[in-house]
Amino acid sequence: MNKKTAQTRLAKLRRQLRQQALDALIVTSPANVTYLTGFLGEDSWLLVGPRTVLVTDSRYIEQAQEECVGGQIHQRTEPMIPAVAGLLNRWKQVATVGIEDTCTMAQFRAIRKALKNKTLKAVGSPVGPLRQIKDADEADQVRRAARAGWTALARALAHLRPGLTEGELAGELESQMRRMGLRPAFDTIVCFGPNGSRNHHQPGSRRLRKADTILIDFGVRRNGYCSDTTRTFAFGKAGEEFARAYEAVRAAQQAAIEQIRPGAALKTIDAAAREAIAQRGFEPHGHGTGHGLGLAVHEEPYLAKTAKGRLRVGHLLTVEPGIYIPGRFGIRIEDDVLVTESGRTVLTQDKQFGFSRPELSIL
Amino acid sequence: MNKKTAQTRLAKLRRQLRQQALDALIVTSPANVTYLTGFLGEDSWLLVGPRTVLVTDSRYIEQAQEECVGGQIHQRTEPMIPAVAGLLNRWKQVATVGIEDTCTMAQFRAIRKALKNKTLKAVGSPVGPLRQIKDADEADQVRRAARAGWTALARALAHLRPGLTEGELAGELESQMRRMGLRPAFDTIVCFGPNGSRNHHQPGSRRLRKADTILIDFGVRRNGYCSDTTRTFAFGKAGEEFARAYEAVRAAQQAAIEQIRPGAALKTIDAAAREAIAQRGFEPHGHGTGHGLGLAVHEEPYLAKTAKGRLRVGHLLTVEPGIYIPGRFGIRIEDDVLVTESGRTVLTQDKQFGFSRPELSIL
Repeated sequence: MNKKTAQTRLAKLRRQLRQQALDALIVTSPANVTYLTGFLGEDSWLLVGPRTVLVTDSRYIEQAQEECVGGQIHQRTEPMIPAVAGLLNRWKQVATVGIEDTCTMAQFRAIRKALKNKTLKAVGSPVGPLRQIKDADEADQVRRAARAGWTALARALAHLRPGLTEGELAGELESQMRRMGLRPAFDTIVCFGPNGSRNHHQPGSRRLRKADTILIDFGVRRNGYCSDTTRTFAFGKAGEEFARAYEAVRAAQQAAIEQIRPGAALKTIDAAAREAIAQRGFEPHGHGTGHGLGLAVHEEPYLAKTAKGRLRVGHLLTVEPGIYIPGRFGIRIEDDVLVTESGRTVLTQDKQFGFSRPELSIL
Repeated sequence: MNKKTAQTRLAKLRRQLRQQALDALIVTSPANVTYLTGFLGEDSWLLVGPRTVLVTDSRYIEQAQEECVGGQIHQRTEPMIPAVAGLLNRWKQVATVGIEDTCTMAQFRAIRKALKNKTLKAVGSPVGPLRQIKDADEADQVRRAARAGWTALARALAHLRPGLTEGELAGELESQMRRMGLRPAFDTIVCFGPNGSRNHHQPGSRRLRKADTILIDFGVRRNGYCSDTTRTFAFGKAGEEFARAYEAVRAAQQAAIEQIRPGAALKTIDAAAREAIAQRGFEPHGHGTGHGLGLAVHEEPYLAKTAKGRLRVGHLLTVEPGIYIPGRFGIRIEDDVLVTESGRTVLTQDKQFGFSRPELSIL
């Protein structure tokens, strides 16, 4: 992230603060701090007021000095709340202070008590709406994260053999990310056979057998940005029912992606995926069809039956329809899509596993 | 966890609620929900009132049915807050509802709005003090988690060779945990050479060289319970300064552990470690000497210079003094210790790496 980007984001935020009659804002969410400053560490809050100050401690000071391009750095030696209150109390011109309402009740009370002659208001963070619209660099981070993900997946799948457990495959995939100097964006999901129909299954000791299905939902974090992709394979020959269901999920994903363009209603895209599955005689997924993606793995907007709102240029979201047949298998295909002026770009393309070659997803 | 344990814990909690004049409590912290019910999943809240109800959803329902021994299970089909408010509103005899003050401001407001004719109070959770005192089964979980950790460490260290990166070693260690069907309790820390003096270093692309020091801080989670242990090695021949500093840290840990007994002041134990290091001509660690450990990696009590309070039977805590010489190396040795009637038991003993054979920690 460069200084100019940070300045632009902070200027937009300050306009929001003026509109809400806030003289300062305490930004406590790590992803929001990253978005405004470039700093990728944790346990650090950002004060946006007469000055912009990142409040961190000795553990993160070197990292802050390297990464933070939005605002000054304050190295605290006392706990966070007295440090932040002390800085705010020195700003005599500040009467009303906002704090993101994702802070805990305990934090809110302690800060309110430590502030002198100031009003503290918990507010829905004005940073969230800014983060929804991604710039070219942010989309590129997700694209590169996904590309690293496909490389890691290819290397992990080289270890496939009957008897391998779900946990071992998940570990191998995450280990491959590590070897590239990257980390998983979330706990990798690996489900063999009937476990694939359990939507929150954790990789366990189930061993791979011939003709099992393999569902892998994984992501890579790169400079703070996440990819989130799912592929489903058949280990050996795919049964006829699996092949039909797979084709239905693939068609559903394609139908949903084709609806993605500026101005499209979120629920229309969700409906397109469900209809394609229902038309082919299967029960559509119980979960949403997709979600926004960026510095968080799940963020606005959400593609769901009851979602309100429409897509805008710069929205970046997953499209992940699925079919789950209890006791048999689960199938999900998930890619990450950017909304562009002319429609959409799938960011998770790749010769081996990416969106452009879905037919390879049956081994 | 068995039903009787859950009943005992819930009975203690209900006594606390009566003392605080609360007719019901909303437990939102996942570790507290686990402590009271045995349920290991997430995104599920517990209502403790006229009945005890675990509020979960379709993703976790099977897991809840297997694990939850404390209370009934309610599978919600709407979002968490309306579901919880709906259940509470049906309890006409409940006038005052508490909620753990680790909930967010946004959650607090939404619940308060959804409750009818009830007062909502955010309270410091009465579950925290209960969790501090571990029973025999809890201590055993930590012991077994640590034992699995030593096995994983031995297997990972078999891959040591010049050129291996910190990230690769961390990945290998976590992968070994996975192969045992377990997960890391926190992101594994691996530091080679001078990186060891940076207290929050993340494993990166630094490659192992002959005569490097290797600091590994890692934990395993088993049935919700965490181990947290650190070992420091020299790769090849240890330099004279490293050997002296290592001996000082070992002596400091031993001095602190010998002070552990029921009634001992927390700050006395902290001081014992620091004095042992200072006496040997080194600067003691800037961080605390230890912390409570259980369902969370960090919990009360804390061993620090300014800590108030005394140890009680059932306290379980890490002892982790260190010496950090910028630009050279860092050394930390960390074990997990249970306070017993007769003094203490080190839970992280093992023939190869455990506390009883610290001299093996220099390769």
